[in-house]
Amino acid sequence: MKESYVDVLIVGAGPAGLMAANALARAGINVRVIEKKATAVNAGHADGIQPRTIEIFQSYGLAERLIREGNHMYMALTQRVPDITAPSARYPFEVTLHQGRIEKILLDSMEQFGVKVERSTVPTVIQLTDDQANVADPGSYAVKRMDADDSFETVQAKFVIGADGAHSWVRKSLGISMEGEQTDSVWGVIDVRLETDFPDIRAKSIINSNTGTCFIIPREDDKDRIYIQLDGTNIGLSTTCNGRVDKTAASPEKLLAVAQEMMKPFRVKQVGECEWWTVYSVGQRVASSYSAQERVFIVGDACHTHSPKAGQGMNASMGDSHNLAWKLTHVLRGWAGLQFLKTYEYERRKFAQDLIAFDKIWSKLFTGKPRTEENQDGVTHEEFLRHFQTFGGFSSNVGIHYGASTITSSEYQNVAQHLPIGQRMIPQVFIRAADGRPIEIQDMLPADTRLRLLVFTGDIDFATKEQLQELCNELERVITTFSRNNTPSEVFRVISIAGTTLRKVDGAHLELPAFLRSHWSSVLVDDLDTKGKQGGDGYTNYGIDQSAGAVVLVRPDGYVGTVAPFNEEGVKHLGTYLNGFINPVQF
Amino acid sequence: MKESYVDVLIVGAGPAGLMAANALARAGINVRVIEKKATAVNAGHADGIQPRTIEIFQSYGLAERLIREGNHMYMALTQRVPDITAPSARYPFEVTLHQGRIEKILLDSMEQFGVKVERSTVPTVIQLTDDQANVADPGSYAVKRMDADDSFETVQAKFVIGADGAHSWVRKSLGISMEGEQTDSVWGVIDVRLETDFPDIRAKSIINSNTGTCFIIPREDDKDRIYIQLDGTNIGLSTTCNGRVDKTAASPEKLLAVAQEMMKPFRVKQVGECEWWTVYSVGQRVASSYSAQERVFIVGDACHTHSPKAGQGMNASMGDSHNLAWKLTHVLRGWAGLQFLKTYEYERRKFAQDLIAFDKIWSKLFTGKPRTEENQDGVTHEEFLRHFQTFGGFSSNVGIHYGASTITSSEYQNVAQHLPIGQRMIPQVFIRAADGRPIEIQDMLPADTRLRLLVFTGDIDFATKEQLQELCNELERVITTFSRNNTPSEVFRVISIAGTTLRKVDGAHLELPAFLRSHWSSVLVDDLDTKGKQGGDGYTNYGIDQSAGAVVLVRPDGYVGTVAPFNEEGVKHLGTYLNGFINPVQF
Repeated sequence: MKESYVDVLIVGAGPAGLMAANALARAGINVRVIEKKATAVNAGHADGIQPRTIEIFQSYGLAERLIREGNHMYMALTQRVPDITAPSARYPFEVTLHQGRIEKILLDSMEQFGVKVERSTVPTVIQLTDDQANVADPGSYAVKRMDADDSFETVQAKFVIGADGAHSWVRKSLGISMEGEQTDSVWGVIDVRLETDFPDIRAKSIINSNTGTCFIIPREDDKDRIYIQLDGTNIGLSTTCNGRVDKTAASPEKLLAVAQEMMKPFRVKQVGECEWWTVYSVGQRVASSYSAQERVFIVGDACHTHSPKAGQGMNASMGDSHNLAWKLTHVLRGWAGLQFLKTYEYERRKFAQDLIAFDKIWSKLFTGKPRTEENQDGVTHEEFLRHFQTFGGFSSNVGIHYGASTITSSEYQNVAQHLPIGQRMIPQVFIRAADGRPIEIQDMLPADTRLRLLVFTGDIDFATKEQLQELCNELERVITTFSRNNTPSEVFRVISIAGTTLRKVDGAHLELPAFLRSHWSSVLVDDLDTKGKQGGDGYTNYGIDQSAGAVVLVRPDGYVGTVAPFNEEGVKHLGTYLNGFINPVQF
Repeated sequence: MKESYVDVLIVGAGPAGLMAANALARAGINVRVIEKKATAVNAGHADGIQPRTIEIFQSYGLAERLIREGNHMYMALTQRVPDITAPSARYPFEVTLHQGRIEKILLDSMEQFGVKVERSTVPTVIQLTDDQANVADPGSYAVKRMDADDSFETVQAKFVIGADGAHSWVRKSLGISMEGEQTDSVWGVIDVRLETDFPDIRAKSIINSNTGTCFIIPREDDKDRIYIQLDGTNIGLSTTCNGRVDKTAASPEKLLAVAQEMMKPFRVKQVGECEWWTVYSVGQRVASSYSAQERVFIVGDACHTHSPKAGQGMNASMGDSHNLAWKLTHVLRGWAGLQFLKTYEYERRKFAQDLIAFDKIWSKLFTGKPRTEENQDGVTHEEFLRHFQTFGGFSSNVGIHYGASTITSSEYQNVAQHLPIGQRMIPQVFIRAADGRPIEIQDMLPADTRLRLLVFTGDIDFATKEQLQELCNELERVITTFSRNNTPSEVFRVISIAGTTLRKVDGAHLELPAFLRSHWSSVLVDDLDTKGKQGGDGYTNYGIDQSAGAVVLVRPDGYVGTVAPFNEEGVKHLGTYLNGFINPVQF
């Protein structure tokens, strides 16, 4: 029997597993991914990528391809209403693309870092060591797992990530229960090309008919997906005891026929084959725990399920892994302790609970019958629209807010009032002082496991140059305490943003203290681009005082960790904050 | 001896040759490329891509990579002046990237269409048939060429493109002379990484010192290129009889020393190796003819040379091929006659002449000594700046204007006053009626050899639906006359642009005549995007009357061929225009 060692073993190669694998591989972590299925997904399944998830892809350098390959869903409902109403969304649309093509983007990226999925491989036993000293030591191989392919193998892992879906074997092995309920709402889905006179066929459309609700998602390559409510329609479905729907009586033809009825008076005709279809019932459940002693984690559908109607599932799943990966990396590098990993469950389980609360309201609205004279309890279009727009920040995921913890400290929120601590860094274009190029600040925050220190210097008065130098010296001293190899650049990147224009700064950026300009590309100014279309008002948009400045610490996942005044008090706060989750270096 | 047949043989695999090869391969033309050099360029040479050339790359689907890999030059001169001042430039910057990487983008694209460069291959004899009937028949193999590699081969080609540089063997074989003069201006170039306190090192900087001029181009990977005027500096150069500079006495160290002197009082230190360097003298010359009987053509440096200071050379070269490729394709497909190819020389030789006139003024300004009290003939910064900005449209190439010909007809310029006929289609974002997605109109004009018929319908009044239908019927009749296989889509694409907003159009775009909406993606409206940043005022920007509309015919190379009123008279004009260069189909 073969025995091997790995830092992180990932079980499952869906969007959650691949997001984790890619992030860890990119960080140079020794990682393996095993997957039960012999082949990759090639149609159907999840298909909606929310604006925040596009931003996450961009932070891994992968958004360009996602945006090129996917359909862009700009409109929702009737009357040409914008689909994305969150004003700060960098990408004001959802990308729709079948899950397999999204996975392929991650697979191709991983491969560049030398990681491939091991397919047709299932684990048989997962076993956390009984030795508590061992469990408490993040450097030890605390988890054993046995594979059940032809050549048995025992894998000793430091960490295991269970990304093995709603019926997660990892979750069951750990004895973690799902909390919540299975609804008896049953839905069908078909991925088809259509010929129709329905004018909103390229918009997210929700049709509340008297025979039930159907829901249209325009897709890549002229396809559409239709979700079809099956409660009450008699196409002969039954639910098995484990909550799965028995598909045998259903067919894509039957599903289309139900949708055609709902979409009347519009004509709907299928062109070519149905690419993919399924029927399912909706569970709204969250796992009672997201880990076993911070050594085995579950992510994605393994820890939360809900209806697919708001296009959240794949996003929440990849968001889990994006949250976990940098934390695991910091622990594996010895920068942070094991306890730090508790913030994963703290942040992501709360979000999953919010998601299910949202899903309950949304699903109800969604399947409501239209309000008519006879049915005064029905939903009006205006009511629906109002809710749709209220939830815009949440459903686009740009509004995800992590509560106070060791990595989220809001004490000085007042120095950057419109930059909520615990939320992702709000997009804003600044202009690079050295070459005048407009730079989206999010592009200065790649997911490379580094913390970003954004120093908003204010409108620099070079008369106070000595003061500035002194403050930078102090800041550097604090940063160096938490740096590795005496160089801040392994753990931190410093970016400075002067509250002045390109013309005014002229060449004066070279007079900034060296700490604020480690490379010519790290100095930005708050100005408009040459076309007057992008940038400007960054200080105002973030609520930062031009004369006072501020320091903003952005986590490696792009979330604002803390904000501090740009003065001695702020430097002290920053030291305390970093001490909360980074081990200081011993000199 | 082997004998083979090919539709187009390209001699030379520099930017001009590869642009032609890629365009022809993409159009499905049988093409071969031979190149003297054994290996591809891997450093140095040309490096400046003008805004219009980025647009051309975009029309072949290649701009994304160019923009990702290259440096973006936004600023020029001192005081943070924009480098690109042409207001209509879609990309308001120059891309700088070494020639080899630009060629690689074209090589990778060609390879997808099955075409690779045959290296270490030189032609020995090129021979146009004496049989005039043969010469006049574009379907015949009129050119013979013999190769001089180990295995002699005779290639019979329908057309030959000489893209073999300033010392073109093809040009000499045809006995075409260069008109103009060789200046005695001698320059050196070095590609280096620098440590310097010169604040404009990431901007295009021109330093007119008392010891001569040097010129800085920021480049990819933190590199800079420095052009260094050598007239009068004694580093021991001499010019050979054929106008080439004898490099033997020069070295990158000597060139840097001259630049260091010119850049004083700033400190300039080289970091690492010099990546590439050369010395050259400037010729300002244009070939007396661009073809032999429209069967053998020359493109690029083979037909024009000038100083590299305005970053024009590679752009003019690729522009030649972009202009020629679709015309050759139309002739090879039998859509147009051989005489049509005369428009290549007509359009591109005129441009080269303008370029040299510009170069003469520019070079003089460029090398002028600074104006001081003693030197009242010198150039002031303001004077320089004024000229720089005046030439912005020309030097960015977005202002290239082709004169009246069979394919450029300005009779109805008044119906789209701000859309100059003979210039490239001005960028403008419209909103797609079916899905609300913002679409840059240039992206509806890919270089796929099709003509685009843009129908600006005006603010459609559906009361006049019958009239609209009738007009569309007439338009369709004309288009079909010049279509192939009874379907317009091989030769034409029709795009309709309604002078109304997304909200107003709602689903009404489905009521447009079928001719105006062959696919759901072909109907646009003149509106702002959801963020209010892009689009809007398209009719106004083009000078098209909202109530009258207009028809705009865009050539396959993205240039406006003609404009016509959207009425019977306009339809008639369109028929006459198309008849000028497309053979009508015989029914």
